[in-house]
Amino acid sequence: MTPRNIRLYRAADYPRMPWKNGGGITQEVARNPGGSNAAFDWRLSIAEVAQDGGFSAFDGYQRIITVLEGAGIQLTIEGHEQAPLIPREAYAFPGDARVHCRLLNGPVRDFNLIYAPGRYQARLQWISASCVFHSAAPDVLVLNAGTALVAQVNGESHTLHARYDCLHSHGQAGLAEYRLQGNIDACMIELTPQGT
Amino acid sequence: MTPRNIRLYRAADYPRMPWKNGGGITQEVARNPGGSNAAFDWRLSIAEVAQDGGFSAFDGYQRIITVLEGAGIQLTIEGHEQAPLIPREAYAFPGDARVHCRLLNGPVRDFNLIYAPGRYQARLQWISASCVFHSAAPDVLVLNAGTALVAQVNGESHTLHARYDCLHSHGQAGLAEYRLQGNIDACMIELTPQGT
Repeated sequence: MTPRNIRLYRAADYPRMPWKNGGGITQEVARNPGGSNAAFDWRLSIAEVAQDGGFSAFDGYQRIITVLEGAGIQLTIEGHEQAPLIPREAYAFPGDARVHCRLLNGPVRDFNLIYAPGRYQARLQWISASCVFHSAAPDVLVLNAGTALVAQVNGESHTLHARYDCLHSHGQAGLAEYRLQGNIDACMIELTPQGT
Repeated sequence: MTPRNIRLYRAADYPRMPWKNGGGITQEVARNPGGSNAAFDWRLSIAEVAQDGGFSAFDGYQRIITVLEGAGIQLTIEGHEQAPLIPREAYAFPGDARVHCRLLNGPVRDFNLIYAPGRYQARLQWISASCVFHSAAPDVLVLNAGTALVAQVNGESHTLHARYDCLHSHGQAGLAEYRLQGNIDACMIELTPQGT
């Protein structure tokens, strides 16, 4: 088992950015590369959506959205109305699509993975029970959407105390073992750079 | 969502190969590339272990083993005795390690992923409840270790009727959505060729 560099991102520290159109606020959980001016390869963020409206376009990116809190949303993508999205249902769509978001019943908070599929390969899974997996993905992130979560990486424990705290396990190569325990409500995101 | 090539491997069709040392029998679930004479990049197999003894070496490979049936095993790796392995606990070790296997209480059947980490990146997870995930891995395999399993790939349903039937979803690129439903006892294996 190769050693991993483990970072804990605390929800209390996430920078908050109001949208240009005034329809919501985005909190950035993590991005690669870091630094808010660079174009990112991938980004995890949480958005507070206060009203119906359009989504910003992310040309050349793939996007996976999940409602965290609130009744849910209904997306209309390129004029096609999609099935309603309730909490914990992940939905993937192209970042450059024309998207309108309708709130089903009041404001929501949602979680977004936006990544460049030409540069990274992604995997995303929501879990609601203890979970063990082996993964060689160089970047593995676990978002705690429940109360408290203990994540073991190669036998070493890390506690995510607060809701929306996020663990980031980074390593160059080799398989690692992950064990998620506790009162589980979490999203696992794995990212691998594409071969050139 | 990019189209995927879906294959179903039926447990009844797996070739059976006795070990050289007489200690067991291996059934091959899937390998890449196909053909029994070529060196493989990855292989999924099920072994019936009838007695204590050594494991064959796979130099240059990584291995993940899980007990499927029986009380369990205790591995001694390079002279170091490991914790007992009971069913559904995946354990990773280098394929070239010197391994002795002791049966805890009678014969076992185990499941093996053996792959070349220089050529492929792997992920393996056992699940015991319905599960939804998005993955861009070119090769996604689901081994049904329960009674019957329905696997949806991008909304298209495939039924694994028999225990140890295996679904293989193969695609060149792009995210796909997987939903596993039914009386779930399954192993998800995802493989991605390494960039060169």
